[in-house]
Amino acid sequence: MDAAREAQNREAFRQAVTNTLERRLFYIPSFKIYRGVAGLYDYGPPGCAVKSNVLAFWRQHFVLEENMLEVDCPCVTPEVVLKASGHVEKFTDLMVKDEKTGVCYRADHLLKDFCNEKLERDPNLPAEKAAEYRHVLAVLDDLSAEELGAKIKDYGITAPDTRNPLSAPYPFNLMFQTSIGPSGLSPGYLRPETAQGIFVNFKDLYYYNGSKLPFAAAQIGQAFRNEISPRQGLLRVREFTLAEIEHFVDPEDKSHPKFSDVSKLEFLMFPREDQVSGRSARRIPLGEAVAQGIVNNETLGYFIGRVYLFLTHLGIDRDRLRFRQHLQNEMAHYAADCWDAEIECSYGWIECVGIADRSAYDLRAHTDKSGVSLIAHEKLPEPREVEKLVITPVKKELGLAFKGNQRMVVEALESMGEKEALELKATLESKGEAEFQVCTLDKVVTIKKNMVSISKEKIKEHQRVFTPSVIEPSFGIGRIIYCLYEHSFYTRASRDGDEQLNVFRFPPLVAPIKCTVFPLVQNAEYEEVAKQIARSLTAAGLSYKIDITGTSIGKRYARTDELGVPFAITVDSTTSVTVRERDSKQQIRVNVDEVASVIKEVTEGHSTWADVMWKYPTHSS
Amino acid sequence: MDAAREAQNREAFRQAVTNTLERRLFYIPSFKIYRGVAGLYDYGPPGCAVKSNVLAFWRQHFVLEENMLEVDCPCVTPEVVLKASGHVEKFTDLMVKDEKTGVCYRADHLLKDFCNEKLERDPNLPAEKAAEYRHVLAVLDDLSAEELGAKIKDYGITAPDTRNPLSAPYPFNLMFQTSIGPSGLSPGYLRPETAQGIFVNFKDLYYYNGSKLPFAAAQIGQAFRNEISPRQGLLRVREFTLAEIEHFVDPEDKSHPKFSDVSKLEFLMFPREDQVSGRSARRIPLGEAVAQGIVNNETLGYFIGRVYLFLTHLGIDRDRLRFRQHLQNEMAHYAADCWDAEIECSYGWIECVGIADRSAYDLRAHTDKSGVSLIAHEKLPEPREVEKLVITPVKKELGLAFKGNQRMVVEALESMGEKEALELKATLESKGEAEFQVCTLDKVVTIKKNMVSISKEKIKEHQRVFTPSVIEPSFGIGRIIYCLYEHSFYTRASRDGDEQLNVFRFPPLVAPIKCTVFPLVQNAEYEEVAKQIARSLTAAGLSYKIDITGTSIGKRYARTDELGVPFAITVDSTTSVTVRERDSKQQIRVNVDEVASVIKEVTEGHSTWADVMWKYPTHSS
Repeated sequence: MDAAREAQNREAFRQAVTNTLERRLFYIPSFKIYRGVAGLYDYGPPGCAVKSNVLAFWRQHFVLEENMLEVDCPCVTPEVVLKASGHVEKFTDLMVKDEKTGVCYRADHLLKDFCNEKLERDPNLPAEKAAEYRHVLAVLDDLSAEELGAKIKDYGITAPDTRNPLSAPYPFNLMFQTSIGPSGLSPGYLRPETAQGIFVNFKDLYYYNGSKLPFAAAQIGQAFRNEISPRQGLLRVREFTLAEIEHFVDPEDKSHPKFSDVSKLEFLMFPREDQVSGRSARRIPLGEAVAQGIVNNETLGYFIGRVYLFLTHLGIDRDRLRFRQHLQNEMAHYAADCWDAEIECSYGWIECVGIADRSAYDLRAHTDKSGVSLIAHEKLPEPREVEKLVITPVKKELGLAFKGNQRMVVEALESMGEKEALELKATLESKGEAEFQVCTLDKVVTIKKNMVSISKEKIKEHQRVFTPSVIEPSFGIGRIIYCLYEHSFYTRASRDGDEQLNVFRFPPLVAPIKCTVFPLVQNAEYEEVAKQIARSLTAAGLSYKIDITGTSIGKRYARTDELGVPFAITVDSTTSVTVRERDSKQQIRVNVDEVASVIKEVTEGHSTWADVMWKYPTHSS
Repeated sequence: MDAAREAQNREAFRQAVTNTLERRLFYIPSFKIYRGVAGLYDYGPPGCAVKSNVLAFWRQHFVLEENMLEVDCPCVTPEVVLKASGHVEKFTDLMVKDEKTGVCYRADHLLKDFCNEKLERDPNLPAEKAAEYRHVLAVLDDLSAEELGAKIKDYGITAPDTRNPLSAPYPFNLMFQTSIGPSGLSPGYLRPETAQGIFVNFKDLYYYNGSKLPFAAAQIGQAFRNEISPRQGLLRVREFTLAEIEHFVDPEDKSHPKFSDVSKLEFLMFPREDQVSGRSARRIPLGEAVAQGIVNNETLGYFIGRVYLFLTHLGIDRDRLRFRQHLQNEMAHYAADCWDAEIECSYGWIECVGIADRSAYDLRAHTDKSGVSLIAHEKLPEPREVEKLVITPVKKELGLAFKGNQRMVVEALESMGEKEALELKATLESKGEAEFQVCTLDKVVTIKKNMVSISKEKIKEHQRVFTPSVIEPSFGIGRIIYCLYEHSFYTRASRDGDEQLNVFRFPPLVAPIKCTVFPLVQNAEYEEVAKQIARSLTAAGLSYKIDITGTSIGKRYARTDELGVPFAITVDSTTSVTVRERDSKQQIRVNVDEVASVIKEVTEGHSTWADVMWKYPTHSS
């Protein structure tokens, strides 16, 4: 097999798809008349309709069917929130700078390009060099700044545009920074994910849910990532729509009442073990994957199943969809398990949905930073005796010392963890006073021995108090849509065979326009019928496009196939019309006053095209 | 009448509404556990559902019914676009600074507060002073920085928190600024409106529409405004959702084919003349308003009518909705006419939708700045002879001089206006060369005489070329929703009369949850029926809430009324259930297997509650 030719085919296929998408305004490079901005794209009319259909189905499939609590939080986020989440410190890529021009590059990109170039273009490459480059490519994501820098130096890699020397790699934070309010003193960022808006609201949402677990909150919204140098067209962009779910669950009980609804599903899974031992993805029944402990728990498994149903229902090819488990070194230290729904397209296997069991990490981080306890309660069947740390701030002394700030100091003392409290107790006993960080005041204060009493006491507990675990399915909507475009695209010969025509085989649910209406010939009578049909389609809530140009029916079909319109209504009499299905090209005759309800039936999935074919007379073209 | 008491009542009413809204999580101050950020709010679960219902109806009422081209552009916008639109220079408020602490205030706010305070609190205020303060309040929006500064000085106004002296007023740009990419050299902003994303795409959208006018493009998305000091709760925020329409039309023909659909509507209008002469808003039939020239043209009138239908359909009270025309000095110099849909709430009359005829301003501004012609063509019935400026760049010479930049220079030369071209011609003839600004290169180049020929020639024109006018209805979704909350809120006595209960009378279309389901008593049989009904509601795409707590039916009704849920299903047998309508409290009996379809009927407007009452047996509670 010829890897180069395959790459060429993939490239040619991608060109055909993206040319069609751009020509028909599925997307438009943003601010194109100003020569655009890398990594920013607009959704043009058909793309925008596809997106809004995908999001409406997401709401139906997840929010409505699972009774989730949907919220909508701002993009502009104050620094304190993203410090707590770790993004201010860690949401970075390693960057190198052209030492003369100051132009920036992603360090790993340059190293990757160098190795690929050597492997592809150098026929005389010694075998051990080739092995080395392949190894570098395999471990690329794990290299530290120092290691990346050393490789770049070793290989003599220079700036691609100028051949100038490069700086050592250093971290660049990928959040867009801004400033909130006029003072310039309140730094803020554009959120890199929507999840934090949900975590900070946990307390209210838990109460709204009747103080019961489990429950899920969901959010659809824009997120931002100031890429160093965006690549891969629509897959790696600087602004994108995320749809995220945070499912809060008791860490001691991650079973799911509806797991049996999905346990029989069987699809491509790629467990950690199989990746490490060089096997390929294989079909595993979901129930088995959970029973065997391949998937950590039922709730995680349930969401994997629901994601599979969501994606395939949209039209993603089930044979080019797999669930890949994160390797141990890919996962954050706190994560219990993590699976990516990866979709294969011309760029390879692309992560489109991440489904992670993030344990209690996020809620704990915000509890620590804000001093507000983000916890859940469970009434115990009978009370139990426990030894517990009791922290009693002496409000009088604290009031004298801290005046208006007293409340914040009290809250900070009360929210100390056990370890911190015992250390403070020891310091107070040995030195009489101690330095103490109050996050909500953003400063360190001095606590004296008479200001707080800390002791261990035996108490009777009537309820268990714990930080819930979070299971997070996070959907990159733009990536899913792009893969859907590739999976839906095909070409077929025109009737006279001298041209290849483009078609998107979108399911009616996804299709940007549900039907086109065109009079067979240009005359006032047929146009009046077309308008009448248009009105009935609008009343039924169906999008349509009227085409009254005089071009041939064949050309008009081709135009509408290229937009993925599933049904075309040709007005060829004043009483009944021809309805043609896009992929089969089959045609039926329907009365003018029935046609909107027939289209509605097949579009909303109450009937299939086959049902309709059986019910109405067919029509040969 | 007692203005102070009325203000007090308004304040009390607003408190009752906002307390309910916040307690039931219609909204949540964003990042509340970190003590929030002024001007940022989350939509909690019911608020988020209301918003998504309002947006879905907006799409149906405008995008679908009018066949608009919907687009979706990024929030992050490069500086060049907002320079062309004028926002970098002019999107400012006047600010003063506490000279010691550096805290910032809006200059007009301080002056307004001062005058109001004097008028309300000072019983001994001399009549001519009172008249002066009232005059200041009336002209507040028109005062220049100098005039504002002079008043602040005159009145001895100091910083409200510290009584420190204030700086002179200076303009503060209200756009959130950021930087695109890693270099720090590409300034960007968060868009202050969504409109610019549409304007820059005009050329592609016009082509997509078959190069035909009129057509409208629409966009729903976030917009941002870095307020100096946000006030008025949910009405003046730093991040908000806009829904905007840009309707492109031939400036010589602003008629609208569907105007007759709305011309009979009659509602409160407040023309410029009536405002100036101190009259009140009055009901004018829309057809008359256009015929008499009160509204500039049919298309503008059509949108005013459609906006009226949209708002009243959502549940906005028609008696507290008016369309106010902008005064001459309120309008931009280029605007042909402008009307605001204002809704009265406890804060007074609030601008919620702006409907402006912006003439050709925006497309011209982007044509000038980008060098790309944003124009339309119309084939003339017969060709006409015109004298026309012909600009012929000499590509060979330009290529030698500008190499890779040749194309940009050629485009800039070709897109010169007549005046500019004739000036260039004169300079070239007198001096042999001239300085020439190339916006797309962002620099000035030297053009020599041999690089371009400019002449006036008589040519035959077969088509008319012109810049379309733009009619822009722009909807502040958050403001509309807040006013809707106030218009929908009322209280009524509980059954035993000892409490006032809160109700939102949302129409089913808007209601966040379509129905609640509760078993009359806690037993397994009834709960099974409740679950069965829940499944059928989900299948019908209806949101619901199950309440299986053991509290009294009355309390459960009260909880659901407070969320504005229009229908409650009480499971009081295993075969049929009681359905209760929120506002009338009327009850009917429906079979278990019919109930989802009955709720769907009344929720989607296919039947009214009265229809249903007639069809099913009523039930007295």
